[in-house]
Amino acid sequence: MPSYSIIENFEVHKNNRFLEIAEALKPELLHKEIKAEKEIMVEKDRQMRTVITEEHPIENLYAKSLKRDDTVFVDFGDHAVGYVTLELSKTGSHQDAPVYFYLKFGERLEEMTDKTADYDGWLSRGWIQEEYIHVDVLPAKVKLPRRYSFRYMELRVIDTSAKFQLKIDGISCDTVSAVDMESVKPVDFGDPLLNQIDLVSRKTLKECMQDVFEDGPKRDRRMWLGDLRLQARANYYTFKNYDLAKRCMYIFAGLLFNEGKLSACVFTEPEMEPDDTYLLDYALFFSSVLLDYYEATGDLETLRDLYDVAIDQIRIAMTQLNEKNVVEDLGDAFWCFLDWGDGLNKQAGATAVLIYCIRYGIRLAKILDKQEDISWLEEKQAMLKEAAVKEFWDEALGMFVSGPDRQASWATQIWMILARVFDKETNCKLIHHVMEVNPRIRMVTPYMYHHYIDALIRCDEKELALEEMKRYWGEMIRDGADTFWELYNPYNREESPYGSSMVNSYCHAWSCTPTYFLRKFYMDNEK
Amino acid sequence: MPSYSIIENFEVHKNNRFLEIAEALKPELLHKEIKAEKEIMVEKDRQMRTVITEEHPIENLYAKSLKRDDTVFVDFGDHAVGYVTLELSKTGSHQDAPVYFYLKFGERLEEMTDKTADYDGWLSRGWIQEEYIHVDVLPAKVKLPRRYSFRYMELRVIDTSAKFQLKIDGISCDTVSAVDMESVKPVDFGDPLLNQIDLVSRKTLKECMQDVFEDGPKRDRRMWLGDLRLQARANYYTFKNYDLAKRCMYIFAGLLFNEGKLSACVFTEPEMEPDDTYLLDYALFFSSVLLDYYEATGDLETLRDLYDVAIDQIRIAMTQLNEKNVVEDLGDAFWCFLDWGDGLNKQAGATAVLIYCIRYGIRLAKILDKQEDISWLEEKQAMLKEAAVKEFWDEALGMFVSGPDRQASWATQIWMILARVFDKETNCKLIHHVMEVNPRIRMVTPYMYHHYIDALIRCDEKELALEEMKRYWGEMIRDGADTFWELYNPYNREESPYGSSMVNSYCHAWSCTPTYFLRKFYMDNEK
Repeated sequence: MPSYSIIENFEVHKNNRFLEIAEALKPELLHKEIKAEKEIMVEKDRQMRTVITEEHPIENLYAKSLKRDDTVFVDFGDHAVGYVTLELSKTGSHQDAPVYFYLKFGERLEEMTDKTADYDGWLSRGWIQEEYIHVDVLPAKVKLPRRYSFRYMELRVIDTSAKFQLKIDGISCDTVSAVDMESVKPVDFGDPLLNQIDLVSRKTLKECMQDVFEDGPKRDRRMWLGDLRLQARANYYTFKNYDLAKRCMYIFAGLLFNEGKLSACVFTEPEMEPDDTYLLDYALFFSSVLLDYYEATGDLETLRDLYDVAIDQIRIAMTQLNEKNVVEDLGDAFWCFLDWGDGLNKQAGATAVLIYCIRYGIRLAKILDKQEDISWLEEKQAMLKEAAVKEFWDEALGMFVSGPDRQASWATQIWMILARVFDKETNCKLIHHVMEVNPRIRMVTPYMYHHYIDALIRCDEKELALEEMKRYWGEMIRDGADTFWELYNPYNREESPYGSSMVNSYCHAWSCTPTYFLRKFYMDNEK
Repeated sequence: MPSYSIIENFEVHKNNRFLEIAEALKPELLHKEIKAEKEIMVEKDRQMRTVITEEHPIENLYAKSLKRDDTVFVDFGDHAVGYVTLELSKTGSHQDAPVYFYLKFGERLEEMTDKTADYDGWLSRGWIQEEYIHVDVLPAKVKLPRRYSFRYMELRVIDTSAKFQLKIDGISCDTVSAVDMESVKPVDFGDPLLNQIDLVSRKTLKECMQDVFEDGPKRDRRMWLGDLRLQARANYYTFKNYDLAKRCMYIFAGLLFNEGKLSACVFTEPEMEPDDTYLLDYALFFSSVLLDYYEATGDLETLRDLYDVAIDQIRIAMTQLNEKNVVEDLGDAFWCFLDWGDGLNKQAGATAVLIYCIRYGIRLAKILDKQEDISWLEEKQAMLKEAAVKEFWDEALGMFVSGPDRQASWATQIWMILARVFDKETNCKLIHHVMEVNPRIRMVTPYMYHHYIDALIRCDEKELALEEMKRYWGEMIRDGADTFWELYNPYNREESPYGSSMVNSYCHAWSCTPTYFLRKFYMDNEK
């Protein structure tokens, strides 16, 4: 089901001082040239999974003369984000016609066998990383102007002429990121799979650290507030690029809209603009993002600057309670994120996120000694906890339920645990009960899995959390992930919220948090 | 049937002095910006002809918000050669995905309904003027880097997103040519159709006058010697750009290959290179091109420079006679052009072209007083004329025949008339006989029709020549020609030598000669 928001009478209130601070923190991107590594042959096997059937050194490709309908596949050896250059020449007679070819870039091998014509999703086809290119004069160094996020490349010759053939002499990529992989020391977690999960997490995060923390360099290439929260957390334990996190917070805070709301996501091109999308949970998370930043940096000035914006989001959310003092259910509208996946009711989860963020608000208020805010927030927190139990707890099920159909989902339980509606002991019982019952409305994103792991650790189930990380993120690696994916439903590997996995992002920052957990909770020198 | 040549052991002998002279004469192109004029709706009617069903001012298009699968058509009002710029913006929410669209440029309205997927010709699909374009950030001024030859443009939106729509704010074209239409005065030939034929001829020639005399700005965008001969002739009676003609002769003469042969065509990018294609008739025509130039300019220095190259082509052709002293028949190979159209046997026509060009060689030799050459050429001319009659004249048919099947074609008769194998009186009888019999192997190109008109005028049939020009070129205008076409077979309007009319050129310089005939033979002050 298409999920997007269009806000009528959308009015942006730009805070120019904030935006200037953000602009001054714009990173200079680091460039690193990499070269195509191998020529590969790709096809679908009998289980319809895309597999590599042959591998050759790239020189094998560079020796070929390509003509109409010839298709070749290239493997760069690792995920890359950047600008591709093709060095092209010809064999045979003088080029007597434009050479015309099709290019496709893919993060996952499957994208090499996906057919664009089959795409029937509701997101723009424009996200499929393909180009049709004419080159009138060979030899030519073709510098593609658009940035791609990929590991694999297909080149299909649409036509040369009867008299000449296309020759490829070099394929390289000018990769870009705000950070450098080498700046973070590997850690031995005593398990090759954990070490690999840590590496792929860092790689995922690095690829998404550009002018801002992008959600995915393939798609959407913009900054979402809920995603930023997880990216920044992982960043503090790895690249420690505090300026980028600060810049992103100032961008969000500089782009409020009607009633002082924070947008769920912002664009930075052609100029900084908020999207007309409000997600209750994402807006609320600003308090969490701000506290995390303060704890990592001790930057009190920024905390003072942005405190009001954080608390205002709680105030705005409080206006969305119903007469029972829980968040009003807006059903299928795109009003609160929590997780992708059809059918998840958000009412209870949204209420839990509100309670969770009030806790962060209280901590912020305490740092700045805002007594009035502290009292108000503590009062609301107590009220909401009581209402949540009253409205959502189902004693017979032993779980929280949500919405008119009294739906018991994984997401609702996890957020109620993180909101600390119950005491720790009860929460621990609840998490085990959920694992046993395994409600049908499951988690599908690494984003939701992050909160699951967080909840397990909160319940002192560190070993179990580690096992679950290995089971989920480790399985993605076994499925070929060089970077972690936007979506991963072990029960349905081709799942997509967009009607087609072709536009799924396979390097998505919200999935990078295992490195955060590992480095925060599982290092020898952990607190 | 595919017609092309690949010469093994192709060795180019560049004459750097000649190429430097050519380089110094490279024209500075004139630029003129034009704007899209109308939005049109296009469809196929019941007779499967493409027609305009609606016309609106272009502002109608600029007011639209375009989304997935919307297709619009634009009419620039006249044929243009140049670089197109699109000014694009959006309506709706902030652009949250790349906008992806398809563009197609067409010289003829039919190209707007042709489907590239249906193309099954043997020439490169790369000649179809289409592009797939992503624009990541709107608003954008998209300057397309490739030159197109067109009047009509299709834009099909492949996708925007659910949140924004594409808006077009302007479409313009930076047109280019070595010459300016305004530099030639219109002449009143006392007949609106003749005035129109003269105008379209000049427009066709102008569009093809770029860095060199191109054969067609859509396809092949290079210089063919046989085409140059006709372009230069028309140029001397219109734009009088003598330098461009001189430049082109020096390029051909500077790029000889094995045995001193002239290539049938040359490329100027990435550097000047001859094609590995030898066409007997085209190479021979150099003597005609050189004499025409000399007569137009009196430039004796150039004549002295290039004389040997011209005479050498005759010498080389003389080595290709068989034991009966006529040109050896090389059958279906691409060895002599004469005309497109399947089944034409070239043997007699090639022999006639050789005789014709020897006449030009003699005239060149006389100007430079090359007694030895004159004697040799006159002797060979007489020998060839005698052999041609003996070998090819069929008394019973009253026509010349060619090849093993003794084929009597229009082309063969016309070239024998132009070669003056018979005296004028006999030639005149022959042309009338051909018109009466109407041999099945007809003329399909304006190039061949040029020689037909030339033959009629030679036979003092000026009125008939005028009628035939109106019938052939005038009919093209009635069929919608803004510029004259590469191919026009009134008996088969979709005929193509390439397996599909999609890659036919609809602005082709060899079809521009009515202006030459009109201005040379039909002006009040004619000689």
